[in-house]
Amino acid sequence: MPSHYRNFHNSVPWLILFLEAVFIVIFYFSDSDEDISSISYPGFQDVNHMVIFGFGFFLTFLKRYGFSSTGFNLLIIVLGVQCSVLIEELLLFLPYSEREDDMRRITKATLSLTAVVISTGAVLGKTNPVQLSLMTVVEMVALHMSRWMHKTFLQISDNTSMMHVHLFGAYFGLAASSRFSEPLPGSEKNASTPKSDLLSMLGTVFLWVFWPSFNSVLLWDKSKAIYNTYFALAVSTVTAFMLSALTTKDGKFKMTHIHSAVLAGGVAVGYAAHSIKYPWIAMILGLLASVISILGSYCLPRCLNPVLKIHDTSGVHFTFGLPSMLGALAQVVLLVLENWTDIPSLRHLVAIHIWAFFLTMDVALITGFITGFILNFKLFKTIPVSKYFEDQFYWEFPHLAVGF
Amino acid sequence: MPSHYRNFHNSVPWLILFLEAVFIVIFYFSDSDEDISSISYPGFQDVNHMVIFGFGFFLTFLKRYGFSSTGFNLLIIVLGVQCSVLIEELLLFLPYSEREDDMRRITKATLSLTAVVISTGAVLGKTNPVQLSLMTVVEMVALHMSRWMHKTFLQISDNTSMMHVHLFGAYFGLAASSRFSEPLPGSEKNASTPKSDLLSMLGTVFLWVFWPSFNSVLLWDKSKAIYNTYFALAVSTVTAFMLSALTTKDGKFKMTHIHSAVLAGGVAVGYAAHSIKYPWIAMILGLLASVISILGSYCLPRCLNPVLKIHDTSGVHFTFGLPSMLGALAQVVLLVLENWTDIPSLRHLVAIHIWAFFLTMDVALITGFITGFILNFKLFKTIPVSKYFEDQFYWEFPHLAVGF
Amino acid sequence: MPSHYRNFHNSVPWLILFLEAVFIVIFYFSDSDEDISSISYPGFQDVNHMVIFGFGFFLTFLKRYGFSSTGFNLLIIVLGVQCSVLIEELLLFLPYSEREDDMRRITKATLSLTAVVISTGAVLGKTNPVQLSLMTVVEMVALHMSRWMHKTFLQISDNTSMMHVHLFGAYFGLAASSRFSEPLPGSEKNASTPKSDLLSMLGTVFLWVFWPSFNSVLLWDKSKAIYNTYFALAVSTVTAFMLSALTTKDGKFKMTHIHSAVLAGGVAVGYAAHSIKYPWIAMILGLLASVISILGSYCLPRCLNPVLKIHDTSGVHFTFGLPSMLGALAQVVLLVLENWTDIPSLRHLVAIHIWAFFLTMDVALITGFITGFILNFKLFKTIPVSKYFEDQFYWEFPHLAVGF
Repeated sequence: MPSHYRNFHNSVPWLILFLEAVFIVIFYFSDSDEDISSISYPGFQDVNHMVIFGFGFFLTFLKRYGFSSTGFNLLIIVLGVQCSVLIEELLLFLPYSEREDDMRRITKATLSLTAVVISTGAVLGKTNPVQLSLMTVVEMVALHMSRWMHKTFLQISDNTSMMHVHLFGAYFGLAASSRFSEPLPGSEKNASTPKSDLLSMLGTVFLWVFWPSFNSVLLWDKSKAIYNTYFALAVSTVTAFMLSALTTKDGKFKMTHIHSAVLAGGVAVGYAAHSIKYPWIAMILGLLASVISILGSYCLPRCLNPVLKIHDTSGVHFTFGLPSMLGALAQVVLLVLENWTDIPSLRHLVAIHIWAFFLTMDVALITGFITGFILNFKLFKTIPVSKYFEDQFYWEFPHLAVGF
Repeated sequence: MPSHYRNFHNSVPWLILFLEAVFIVIFYFSDSDEDISSISYPGFQDVNHMVIFGFGFFLTFLKRYGFSSTGFNLLIIVLGVQCSVLIEELLLFLPYSEREDDMRRITKATLSLTAVVISTGAVLGKTNPVQLSLMTVVEMVALHMSRWMHKTFLQISDNTSMMHVHLFGAYFGLAASSRFSEPLPGSEKNASTPKSDLLSMLGTVFLWVFWPSFNSVLLWDKSKAIYNTYFALAVSTVTAFMLSALTTKDGKFKMTHIHSAVLAGGVAVGYAAHSIKYPWIAMILGLLASVISILGSYCLPRCLNPVLKIHDTSGVHFTFGLPSMLGALAQVVLLVLENWTDIPSLRHLVAIHIWAFFLTMDVALITGFITGFILNFKLFKTIPVSKYFEDQFYWEFPHLAVGF
Repeated sequence: MPSHYRNFHNSVPWLILFLEAVFIVIFYFSDSDEDISSISYPGFQDVNHMVIFGFGFFLTFLKRYGFSSTGFNLLIIVLGVQCSVLIEELLLFLPYSEREDDMRRITKATLSLTAVVISTGAVLGKTNPVQLSLMTVVEMVALHMSRWMHKTFLQISDNTSMMHVHLFGAYFGLAASSRFSEPLPGSEKNASTPKSDLLSMLGTVFLWVFWPSFNSVLLWDKSKAIYNTYFALAVSTVTAFMLSALTTKDGKFKMTHIHSAVLAGGVAVGYAAHSIKYPWIAMILGLLASVISILGSYCLPRCLNPVLKIHDTSGVHFTFGLPSMLGALAQVVLLVLENWTDIPSLRHLVAIHIWAFFLTMDVALITGFITGFILNFKLFKTIPVSKYFEDQFYWEFPHLAVGF
């Protein structure tokens, strides 16, 4: 192996060590708050389980990238949670911030990490752990900045602001991925096997089951959000099967459709889950989310991605990006329908939600683009295109490759 | 591919779309009830996790049917839950029904779906999604009818009535499967690999862990039911290993025995879990359940199934059917032992439980048989026997089949 | 197959049947207590899930031993939990014991079983089910003896005493494994494949997510223990990646490092999780635990194991043994730092903790050694070295070995 790569590998541990040392030092100066929490432990546990286990295995669809998908996912989550908790701590020095209890802090940090996990989905297999760790830190800073502006300038509630993580994660990841070299066309490694697809289905089902927890964990009155999320997920699952059969030749189902579209309903309904009055509204939202997710999976890689030179490994654009945009739009439409008698207050409400949306998008795209640009400095020892999607570049394989 | 199959594939999306449209329309006219629920969210979540994840992977033992096992399981559950919630809504027009809160409604719907999942186990690999969707709807209607009669005519409690789902599911599925063509003898596809067996073990262990939740979720005082279910499961696990070694040549264990018999105790103890006073009774019940499950796995496929022309893919007869019958019998015996001093009241109690049992069996067998008959109309494009147990008939495989 | 092995296989069911019959008989004479429990059902469920599912799949890394890893794990847990509940019952005849409610009893039994599961990790693939069942019973007796002495003579709290299970399990297993023949050098079966490593990663991630539950389940005030455990796990994960890259050639990661070192923090912080005041202390403990775990994985198999003739299949010495020793040491250091103003009380406290540590170690090593000695009597039909790590010795494989 040429010295170039050896250097890259040598720089990994020192960067991680440096980050971890910084975290411990800052933690030393931070306080902890032992008040009784508004978040129950099972609530935190569900979200934690979902992010670490669910997303870890959701991303294992690449045939030679299972170790990295699950391993690096765990690494960036633990780095990111520490980072996120510390940023919250630092934000206390800014006005309009208040101290929160330990359990709430760690739960919100875990929720925020969803953005990073989604972003890594867009650059999956194309980034080394140094790049991933840096991206995690930068994205956490940008996300907290965006959320702080939500809270301070727009007075948006904690839960609504948090539901922008899918939007933020998807577009940050896409903007960053535009700066990475595209994989070689027809690369045999950028594909799944039935076994890896089944393992990814395992992760998907996990995410599916826990999605109502995700949409309700920060709320006081959870039952409405749980009920709506469940039905949105249910209808988007049904629609995913329907559209998958309609859009493939011979009417067969396609596993990648199922992976992405069954979750679309949960993403789209996130913003308004607690305020939707009747389940049929959530159901229609789930249906629409699934439709744009599957249509997106056809159009985007053919029309948009080649133009913008984006390569989106796990399809985060149509899995999380588009459904999240739909959800933001639906929230505004629902607001209009509910408050159309009271025009002045409506105008204010709608303006706030639209501002929140564009603020998130702008911060995500700009910081994502800059991050992608920085990550491709030679300093970070970018991976050669021929080594994309390859576990063996990062992991020791004492065992023979037979049966892999 | 001949046009016959293309037609089948083309009819799938429209049937699903039609069903979903009907569901949304009915939901539009239905009310939702936001009272504080008697079911906690973790309780619902356990059952949901169990049905979607546990059963999904429990059924992945066929070597070429992993995508369909997990995918179609998810599809029929989301269809069935919507259907079940709506039927409950329609039952409100009948006398003796009362409105329930959202969380309880959705939890009961998920519990009811166990029946459908068990039934699909009997026809696994032999039904296409059109047939599965129809079967789900019909079985839900039949199950609710049976449970409504339990409640109205026999005044059986909600929980006891719900515990008949295993019985109902198993015999509905068996009756339906008697109308399907039998697979070709010695079909290489109707078998498992060590990998698929291990994945099925993953699902089994999941079901095992969550079974105490299943048996206790509808109860107010859960701890007794949890304790008894745990010990029944424990003893049936021990017995499964013991009998598996006794009944195979060379005293080896057989994975299919373990899969089915470790759960038998949980099924059998379901009816009486809340009322059994001492754990040793639950333990003996677990032992007996495991014994009849393993003996059944020897006798039924050799003696009964060829006579009745049943082919029971995942052995639901001995995994769920026989243990459930044992449980119903045990419940009656326990009633007799407890109330033998008060003959008139005992006679009444015993009569009710026996009636409930036969009612469930009759409804299951009759509607199952009719359903099996209807599903084999040419209209539904039955699968040719040579395409049984084959993912590739339903799913696109862009990847090479190497390593499958 | 020679008659020798047939005999072994024939003795399995009778031993298990005998054990189970004894259990049921003793349960018949035991009381059950229906008081409201101090342990919630989700708390028990987390621990149960972790021990049965998490450890079951944590141990599936051997390429040909997946069935036995998950299957026998389930078997010994259900045997052990019954055994543990009964020993607690018998201990009521000794002074200083008090009756506990059902849920607490079963939760403590499940926690105790962690010791057995860790011990089986040391002899994984080298023991037959007869040996495993006996080892389970003997180890449960020894562990309860050790814990009874903790409670009676040292007045140690239930939770602190329970946290010695990792220590006990690791050294009991190591002592026992010293009496087993070593596997043939270069045995092709004593290895993992990428697939089995990934499945083991699935189990590891499960354990990781549930570890905070493990460390907090017996406590009244859980939030401190959860918070500290989470951060200890987080830092040990980061450190695992860092050190893995530092210690391998070419700076690659090694999956076995990740498997063992990510959990080290959770093990080490167990003793003091509820009393550590600031998360940075837990973080440093997590860092140190990960360091000694990875250094141990280099030194022990090369330096210590050949001298003591130990073969430690899944590395329980450095995964659980060393981090647990570190945790015990850290607890004493923290006590000294907190109470150094009050020398007499400090001396007493420190003495108690050191006594508890040595008591656990002594009981574990002595009983482990004796157990290993007994298990290798010819009576128990030890497995020939050539059949180590081989599912096919225990399980029927009707399927062809192709694709295994």
